[in-house]
Amino acid sequence: MTWHTDYLVMNTKQRYEIADITDDVARIVADAKVREGMVLVSAMHITASVYVNDHEPGLWSDMMTWLEGLAPAKPDYKHRLTGEDNADAHLKRSLLGHQVMLPITRGKLDLGPWERVHYAEFDGRRPKRIVVKVFGD
Amino acid sequence: MTWHTDYLVMNTKQRYEIADITDDVARIVADAKVREGMVLVSAMHITASVYVNDHEPGLWSDMMTWLEGLAPAKPDYKHRLTGEDNADAHLKRSLLGHQVMLPITRGKLDLGPWERVHYAEFDGRRPKRIVVKVFGD
Amino acid sequence: MTWHTDYLVMNTKQRYEIADITDDVARIVADAKVREGMVLVSAMHITASVYVNDHEPGLWSDMMTWLEGLAPAKPDYKHRLTGEDNADAHLKRSLLGHQVMLPITRGKLDLGPWERVHYAEFDGRRPKRIVVKVFGD
Repeated sequence: MTWHTDYLVMNTKQRYEIADITDDVARIVADAKVREGMVLVSAMHITASVYVNDHEPGLWSDMMTWLEGLAPAKPDYKHRLTGEDNADAHLKRSLLGHQVMLPITRGKLDLGPWERVHYAEFDGRRPKRIVVKVFGD
Repeated sequence: MTWHTDYLVMNTKQRYEIADITDDVARIVADAKVREGMVLVSAMHITASVYVNDHEPGLWSDMMTWLEGLAPAKPDYKHRLTGEDNADAHLKRSLLGHQVMLPITRGKLDLGPWERVHYAEFDGRRPKRIVVKVFGD
Repeated sequence: MTWHTDYLVMNTKQRYEIADITDDVARIVADAKVREGMVLVSAMHITASVYVNDHEPGLWSDMMTWLEGLAPAKPDYKHRLTGEDNADAHLKRSLLGHQVMLPITRGKLDLGPWERVHYAEFDGRRPKRIVVKVFGD
């Protein structure tokens, strides 16, 4: 059994931003040299998401607009009393999910035709980590 | 360590539909013949969900109504500019989640009394795959 | 390969309640004595969530208020026709998610600085189980 742990560091230019990280994950999976296995991709900061969906900038924009509608940035969260202005980011991250497990079959990510792994940042402009942990044989 | 990978093909009659796939997953788990392990069940198409909740048609109807309220089918998504009319399906799938990991203990799915695995389709009437990957000893 | 399965029993005083279960999970991980591995933490009842987010009571209150806004307790769900009054709990659990997978690296939970595992109960005041299953080497 092989265990291979790596980390991606994200530092987005915008406070809210979506990035496709599939190629970065695939590179780490290739490094692990497993034929059958899985890889966990999980945001280590609690104001960001990792999810699988379409690589399509129009949809990325739709998703951000939609998340803002369901979990708006506004001043009246109780979390604000701690001095934090990112309560909406904690909620948006919960809506979209913070981790995915991807199967590895015959040495490659076993993804559907349109499945791409994305990172969604809701409180960016500073370095934040994603853990990418592969296991398999 | 055993790795056992199988795929389910769903082809729903309706565009929006919920199906209980627990027995299909249990059959694949039985095929894998592991005593301790886990099984990943993950939708390979990005307009469908896999989730664990109640097998109750009234609740299934409630869930679809609720998802339509939070992520409505409507014409003004930017994703529409690519010619696609299924932006709502991408959002609904994100809300409900697209994968689950089920524990296998003493040779069986280790589920609570009411836990059932479901497939939720938001852009159906064509064949779509679910990967079911078992690992264990 | 080590497989170690344990269960937490939650019995909240309130119908709706959030609890930090990170220390309980860490104790079970320590019992499993694996150096590299993962742990699945999954609610076995379908009206509760397990999620990773901030340990901050103001945010917990914000989350419950927000979930009530998106998936309100109200009498007109079809699920009500079965005699159940907890349809909102099924929906809230779906929004927040019901399970997480945590990496174990060099013998410890490999979490970000603010990541804490929480249990969210939406139909409490009775014993409910969480499965905590560790695997690794």
